[in-house]
Amino acid sequence: MRISVEPSRQASDYAFHHRIRVRFAETDAMGIVHHSRYLLYLEEARVAYLRHIGRPYPEWRAAGMNATVLEVHLRYVKALQFDDEFDVHVSLAEVGRTTFQMAYLVQRDGEVCATGVTAHGLTNTAGRPMRMPSWLVEMAVDRRDPAVN
Amino acid sequence: MRISVEPSRQASDYAFHHRIRVRFAETDAMGIVHHSRYLLYLEEARVAYLRHIGRPYPEWRAAGMNATVLEVHLRYVKALQFDDEFDVHVSLAEVGRTTFQMAYLVQRDGEVCATGVTAHGLTNTAGRPMRMPSWLVEMAVDRRDPAVN
Amino acid sequence: MRISVEPSRQASDYAFHHRIRVRFAETDAMGIVHHSRYLLYLEEARVAYLRHIGRPYPEWRAAGMNATVLEVHLRYVKALQFDDEFDVHVSLAEVGRTTFQMAYLVQRDGEVCATGVTAHGLTNTAGRPMRMPSWLVEMAVDRRDPAVN
Amino acid sequence: MRISVEPSRQASDYAFHHRIRVRFAETDAMGIVHHSRYLLYLEEARVAYLRHIGRPYPEWRAAGMNATVLEVHLRYVKALQFDDEFDVHVSLAEVGRTTFQMAYLVQRDGEVCATGVTAHGLTNTAGRPMRMPSWLVEMAVDRRDPAVN
Repeated sequence: MRISVEPSRQASDYAFHHRIRVRFAETDAMGIVHHSRYLLYLEEARVAYLRHIGRPYPEWRAAGMNATVLEVHLRYVKALQFDDEFDVHVSLAEVGRTTFQMAYLVQRDGEVCATGVTAHGLTNTAGRPMRMPSWLVEMAVDRRDPAVN
Repeated sequence: MRISVEPSRQASDYAFHHRIRVRFAETDAMGIVHHSRYLLYLEEARVAYLRHIGRPYPEWRAAGMNATVLEVHLRYVKALQFDDEFDVHVSLAEVGRTTFQMAYLVQRDGEVCATGVTAHGLTNTAGRPMRMPSWLVEMAVDRRDPAVN
Repeated sequence: MRISVEPSRQASDYAFHHRIRVRFAETDAMGIVHHSRYLLYLEEARVAYLRHIGRPYPEWRAAGMNATVLEVHLRYVKALQFDDEFDVHVSLAEVGRTTFQMAYLVQRDGEVCATGVTAHGLTNTAGRPMRMPSWLVEMAVDRRDPAVN
Repeated sequence: MRISVEPSRQASDYAFHHRIRVRFAETDAMGIVHHSRYLLYLEEARVAYLRHIGRPYPEWRAAGMNATVLEVHLRYVKALQFDDEFDVHVSLAEVGRTTFQMAYLVQRDGEVCATGVTAHGLTNTAGRPMRMPSWLVEMAVDRRDPAVN
């Protein structure tokens, strides 16, 4: 599998956004948010999005299904700083037979700070790959892949 | 339960030490190691100590036993910085019927940077408290609680 | 300096509370929130509290003042889990000449999950201790130390 | 800038390797290392590599030079678990006028666990882009880009 999605830099191309504020513990000695923390932000936004569409991730896990991360790609455009409020815009960008991709745009006051894509596979509690549930496939069919520009 | 141990500031009072180097990601915008990271250092040293005495923590877990953290106390004396190498000195400081306490001294080039105590309870995989294994009780009996000054 | 405050387990004893939701990245292989993450939660609540009283921490830092953590004490009562929403209740509990203490109560649905105390010293950008600003001293005088039971 | 390097899955294609052991705090509720932690591992290996070639990163910083992360790409192949020892193989993979790319291979007992690429820009303390130092350009000229397969 390879990430094939190019995340849009237009907020209007995304299905959902989630607001976060930078913790002091997320900064580093350069005085900015450490690059690894963005993965925590994308994950928080992804979980908020799944809750928003009525498919909360704890229910996936209760049903024995994990959305394992297979691949991530991040571009850092403008550094976030302590106490900044920012939005993570998120969309389901592509659904294959056993994998799906999510696209992300991180914005602060309308300014692009980062973009990202995460690719996921579904695995059962034994770590074995599972087929996509039909609702997830249908979600992708219903839309025009807005996050791909 | 309450932490009753006062950790010694003498390295020679400890049973074992473990060397760590500060990662850049562990610093914060003050330019020093964020105070929360010391708990990661103490945990790494605790795990190294258990391996050293032939009781590796993965074996505890494989046997269905977790050493849940009940309480922590940390004193920050001198800030660690990026790329610093330091030692975490560690000892089993006290063993009760269902809890035990570990004491820690964090030193860089012989200088005290922090001290800490962690109190643990043993729980099974269902989260229920368990009795201390006899080897752990005997370890405490065999010694003079060197970390208590 | 030594932590002298005993944090109350009554939410009504605290001046402010701040709601947080557990990130997946904050859990560990025991399936619960790792004990080190609570320090991130207390810090986030502390920063929210300072904003609430009109003394945002970024302004402290812009004025060359850091609230260095000198000591922390945490008691873990009931484990938080992925996606839990919880409140961190926080109060300024004591103000000395060069240090102050904050008390915390972590609750989920009215159930006590943890309590904590953090002790701070004020330092300038060179890391030297500073006197408490008068507004902080007055805040402590104005109240009955509600977090001490 | 875009990551153009494809990291090799052959350890022998890399210039250096660095051994790390998984901390318990780095696992998550799936029982494996959380995907965000791999960025900490790559960074630790990158810093170790720079020390190894006599260009320690603290000296970069003391000279007012930061290697800002512009882009990251990670592929997760086989999950790391608590207490696993693993090697991060690392190479300087490409050097441009203002950016450079590093390639990484994460292996446990000879088994590929992950690959990654990080792209960096040089910035001064004011956050402005800087030219590559000549030693870094020469390092790239001297070699055959072994990490590109």
